[in-house]
Amino acid sequence: TRIVTLPGDGIGPEIMAPAVELLRRLVADVEIEEHLFGGAAIDAHGTGLTDEVLGACRSADAVLLAAVGGPKWDTTDPSRPRPEQGLLGLRQGLGLYANLRPVRPLPALYDASPLRREIIEGTDLLVVRELTGGIYFGEKTRTADSATDVCTYSIAEIERIVRTGFAAARSKVASVDKANVLETSRLWREVVKRIHAEEFPNVELEHVLVDNAAMQLVAAPRHFDVIVTENMFGDILSDVAAMLTGSIGMLPSASLGDEADGGVGVFEPVHGSAPDIAGQGIANPLAMFLSVALLLRHGLDLESEAAAVESAVDKALDQGLRTRDLGGTANTAEATAAVFAGLA
Amino acid sequence: TRIVTLPGDGIGPEIMAPAVELLRRLVADVEIEEHLFGGAAIDAHGTGLTDEVLGACRSADAVLLAAVGGPKWDTTDPSRPRPEQGLLGLRQGLGLYANLRPVRPLPALYDASPLRREIIEGTDLLVVRELTGGIYFGEKTRTADSATDVCTYSIAEIERIVRTGFAAARSKVASVDKANVLETSRLWREVVKRIHAEEFPNVELEHVLVDNAAMQLVAAPRHFDVIVTENMFGDILSDVAAMLTGSIGMLPSASLGDEADGGVGVFEPVHGSAPDIAGQGIANPLAMFLSVALLLRHGLDLESEAAAVESAVDKALDQGLRTRDLGGTANTAEATAAVFAGLA
Ligand SMILES: CC(C)[C@H](C(=O)O)[C@@H](O)C(=O)O
Ligand SMILES: CC(C)[C@H](C(=O)O)[C@@H](O)C(=O)O
Repeated sequence: TRIVTLPGDGIGPEIMAPAVELLRRLVADVEIEEHLFGGAAIDAHGTGLTDEVLGACRSADAVLLAAVGGPKWDTTDPSRPRPEQGLLGLRQGLGLYANLRPVRPLPALYDASPLRREIIEGTDLLVVRELTGGIYFGEKTRTADSATDVCTYSIAEIERIVRTGFAAARSKVASVDKANVLETSRLWREVVKRIHAEEFPNVELEHVLVDNAAMQLVAAPRHFDVIVTENMFGDILSDVAAMLTGSIGMLPSASLGDEADGGVGVFEPVHGSAPDIAGQGIANPLAMFLSVALLLRHGLDLESEAAAVESAVDKALDQGLRTRDLGGTANTAEATAAVFAGLA
Repeated sequence: TRIVTLPGDGIGPEIMAPAVELLRRLVADVEIEEHLFGGAAIDAHGTGLTDEVLGACRSADAVLLAAVGGPKWDTTDPSRPRPEQGLLGLRQGLGLYANLRPVRPLPALYDASPLRREIIEGTDLLVVRELTGGIYFGEKTRTADSATDVCTYSIAEIERIVRTGFAAARSKVASVDKANVLETSRLWREVVKRIHAEEFPNVELEHVLVDNAAMQLVAAPRHFDVIVTENMFGDILSDVAAMLTGSIGMLPSASLGDEADGGVGVFEPVHGSAPDIAGQGIANPLAMFLSVALLLRHGLDLESEAAAVESAVDKALDQGLRTRDLGGTANTAEATAAVFAGLA
């Protein structure tokens, strides 16, 4: 089993180290191949993602990614490379059109959320975000006095992500768009209706406008099972949903493509590289561990190992583990020890 | 004083009636001119905004708008008119580039919010949303197998809304963009930096990515004073911010343009036409009353009358007024009576 790890920038390396340790404990004969990525790759090679690294990812069984970016590489100059280009290049290069972000607040953390306990209790939802289309990948232009981004969706791009959403639903799908304003959203809605009628007539479907969806996620998150939406809306909504779990430091994600594209998945926390706390050893590694669980489940088909990681995280929190983002004082090493103790 | 009123659709007429009553009580010699708008105008004239109505708005002192839209007019067929086109046409026709959405949760309603009291206490922020540019107004196209929306911002469009944001700030401005992905956001960020340095060096400025901003609005809303952002991000973020007040039924907005465009403002609640409860007399009229307050303040320069409305709303809530969206049982008439009682 070959896993490529991309620690990236900021707190990335600090949380990748214990995640690799976790992988080694759970997967016999795992081969770990670490590569520079994001800002670190810009410093070394002038680009956030080299062809060599993309090639290594393509031939791996799965990719574990931490986070990229930081003030050092922040620039609005289009001629300078940015770490996020590496991330977008990886998503596109591996054809990772489906980004799955499960949000299931743990009872132990109900009181760490900015939302009231009655609101979040029992929430168990999945954001299915389209990840290789839309305004993220449309043409970008500048003139002397303006800038333009283009948002395009093809029917085929919408169909495949919508199928992922319906297939993942236990009871219902909320398709999120802005059909009262955007042409891409009107096409999105038409495709969703057709796929629903033709292929998933037994799954309950509703169409929700993005502004309303953002509001409902805060006011009545239990309402949702699967939320399926386009790239930019998914970016915003999944961060709103993260607040239900008390901290974005708790949220893992899986990015998957088609077998036709090689079928290699990338697994990464939803949080960023947190440059403000990098190097201090205090980052919350739990989203990273939960990303390892998703890698075990979706990337390597090791369901019982995945469940073991998730239950070890649950147990550690039940027993009182709280990193700073959760209002506690545990550092990365302490959080790691607490989770590993529960693995036995 | 001539006010054009546009009740629109759904609960619109039900909440417009008491708002007009409020205006008549506070403004001597007010002349009210009511027009069809949105779905109601489509039914009567085949378009959400007739030239006649736009003309009437142009020559009014201010426009009071309730809400448009409903399932009756929902369509993804580009050849059929949609109520929202009326709204967008009005914004564009009057040059209303600046949408102000103040969010100041009232202590009496702290417990009606899905957020915990400690989180919202003391929040007093203003979302300044660009309203006539971006992906809302870019070219929209369809081919046989795809759809496209174009997002463009010119330097001049960014400059004027950013100035509005800085001018409204008491302490600091959070400029929200997605500069790590979008070209329009990178231009936005450059312009914000320049206007800050040249014209408002004493206002504290931070740049926040939209996904992070959505999260911070839920996790730490007190952090914000003025949030200034582009059209689509402002749409989503202001609905998230609405949750701080317990209900979107509490949030007013003012849409303002330049004197050059006639300087007529449109005042409307942030909530929509709520077709699900239309016709039952149970809609919360408070956002509508607070929109009248903004009309008095920004449209007619009647500051003390504006403050009187706001304090009557506060008082009614303090004395226990709760409509259904706030967890109570008061209907529109009861809520109206409670507020009018406090005006005396
Ligand atoms: C870093 C950034 C480009 C990225 C995105 O917007 O997709 C991040 O916010 C995410 O959600 O994975
Ligand atoms: C009705 C719709 C077009 C509108 C918008 O998106 O601007 C509404 O959501 C708003 O926020 O005023």
